[in-house]
Amino acid sequence: MKEHWMGTLLLALDLSGTFVFALSGATAGIKKRLDLFGVLVLSFAAGNAGGIARDVLIGAVPPAALATWYYLAVSLLAGVVTFWRPAGIDRLRNPVLLFDAAGLGLFAVAGTQKALNFGLNPVMAALLGMLTGIGGGMTRDLFLTEVPIVLRADIYALAALAGAAVVVIGSAVRLPATAVTIAGAALCFALRYLAMCRGWRLPVADDPQPPKTPAPKDRKDDGGSL
Amino acid sequence: MKEHWMGTLLLALDLSGTFVFALSGATAGIKKRLDLFGVLVLSFAAGNAGGIARDVLIGAVPPAALATWYYLAVSLLAGVVTFWRPAGIDRLRNPVLLFDAAGLGLFAVAGTQKALNFGLNPVMAALLGMLTGIGGGMTRDLFLTEVPIVLRADIYALAALAGAAVVVIGSAVRLPATAVTIAGAALCFALRYLAMCRGWRLPVADDPQPPKTPAPKDRKDDGGSL
Amino acid sequence: MKEHWMGTLLLALDLSGTFVFALSGATAGIKKRLDLFGVLVLSFAAGNAGGIARDVLIGAVPPAALATWYYLAVSLLAGVVTFWRPAGIDRLRNPVLLFDAAGLGLFAVAGTQKALNFGLNPVMAALLGMLTGIGGGMTRDLFLTEVPIVLRADIYALAALAGAAVVVIGSAVRLPATAVTIAGAALCFALRYLAMCRGWRLPVADDPQPPKTPAPKDRKDDGGSL
Repeated sequence: MKEHWMGTLLLALDLSGTFVFALSGATAGIKKRLDLFGVLVLSFAAGNAGGIARDVLIGAVPPAALATWYYLAVSLLAGVVTFWRPAGIDRLRNPVLLFDAAGLGLFAVAGTQKALNFGLNPVMAALLGMLTGIGGGMTRDLFLTEVPIVLRADIYALAALAGAAVVVIGSAVRLPATAVTIAGAALCFALRYLAMCRGWRLPVADDPQPPKTPAPKDRKDDGGSL
Repeated sequence: MKEHWMGTLLLALDLSGTFVFALSGATAGIKKRLDLFGVLVLSFAAGNAGGIARDVLIGAVPPAALATWYYLAVSLLAGVVTFWRPAGIDRLRNPVLLFDAAGLGLFAVAGTQKALNFGLNPVMAALLGMLTGIGGGMTRDLFLTEVPIVLRADIYALAALAGAAVVVIGSAVRLPATAVTIAGAALCFALRYLAMCRGWRLPVADDPQPPKTPAPKDRKDDGGSL
Repeated sequence: MKEHWMGTLLLALDLSGTFVFALSGATAGIKKRLDLFGVLVLSFAAGNAGGIARDVLIGAVPPAALATWYYLAVSLLAGVVTFWRPAGIDRLRNPVLLFDAAGLGLFAVAGTQKALNFGLNPVMAALLGMLTGIGGGMTRDLFLTEVPIVLRADIYALAALAGAAVVVIGSAVRLPATAVTIAGAALCFALRYLAMCRGWRLPVADDPQPPKTPAPKDRKDDGGSL
């Protein structure tokens, strides 16, 4: 009974996150002038690659995103909507960023739960939760031959990791799964939202061998505050 | 008995497709000035990455391409031939495009068959058949840090999907596997051939925020390049 | 007993190689101006992606690099050290190249051993050993949207392949595993070291359709009837 309930919760979380992530994939694909097929591939990849990578790594094959048609349908819907109404999606930029933060939280906690269910140790389960959250965006960027934005800027993965840590710690001390899941997703969302509003960033190291034209603003990163 | 026959058919299809796809990988690698090892890696990747991805996703590990040395040998042969006779392969550009269309059809139906055999639902089996067909070329392009051509131009993946759909539908209504396989591969080949001859393309969306130099129309670049 | 000993040997080899490879990932990430998180991801990827790919392909999931926290800890340590002391690591460039050659040998033989243990045939086991050695560096380069250096220059993968071949052949003729492992790693290290010192390179093919600036020697492709 409880198993079943957990499963339904995980499915609902996953599908919601998939839709908003797929929007980001479709938007990026349109900007790079992909054709309709390319845009739909980017939608599916951005929405599902994180979860697929997680499932392949923990041995849950075929991955959930391929075992049913739900994830595909949700991804294609996001892609088609974006393709025919890119201006509309663009006007929704700020709401989409909000939803993206929510999707990040949902994916991180759902991915962590699943990795724990498959017997991974807590530290790696949290990392796989983070991978679930950031893997789609990384795949989207790599398909477009861009260095993944998550590796360069912003507090994004750390927010996912914080949410995942809540799930792992809550599970270790046997708190109720539902409460822990909600708390983890909420923490991730809040961190991501604050990071966006305040422009929080991680430090960048000084390159001992800078290229020809060192940008002057590169000087300010002393690597001190997190 | 029938199982065995099916297995032999799948193997023959796979190896034929592997060779022509490996040619495309080797050609691309030589154009990017890879060394001999790089060219052989590109040959193997272009010929096998689609099938390997499919096998990892459906849980058929080790993937067929790694379980025997056949696929490796066929890929290396294609790579070596291309490496020492690039001009010869280049002169065969049109035949190679034809063989590539044939390989696409073979991979799509073989991949769909295998996914069905592993119990995937029909919609996702067709998608995995398509992935089998396009995965090698995508990996080839990504290794060379190019946005996969299949996401940008031409009717390519859709032809594979149409062939895969024939297999899935034929299997659902219990038509003979051989007939269905041939019909699917033929449909894919025909669609791809027509798309090349007539320059069929998928639509590209209007970008709501075009970059600095907005092109008034879609770039007419590189239709049908391998 | 012997199983246990083998396992400990493999673990020690893997962790040593992981650290030096992670250094290369962190250094590359810093050069591309990734933030701290990005540098740590590159460290982990460069140190572990080869082994993870091998484990996924042979069905050893969750991969060893995710089953314990050892690999993560070693990778993060390398990343953090490089991040806060990039100048120090840079001064150690030559030692690091030496350690990288040692890591390559260790990974190649350990990867080959593991693939043999999982029942792969000798040829493909050697290839998977090579993949273990070069997969991390390839992933590092692809994350930074560069054509993997291993495909373009130097004798690197071939050295790994030679070491892997020693393990495969030694195993086939039932020589003691320890001796074979050491001999394979030593051969790989020696080849890689010589290749670095003497600038050994693999041939690059003539491109039949050179880009804008055709080198004069590209002209010689005349007589190749296929």
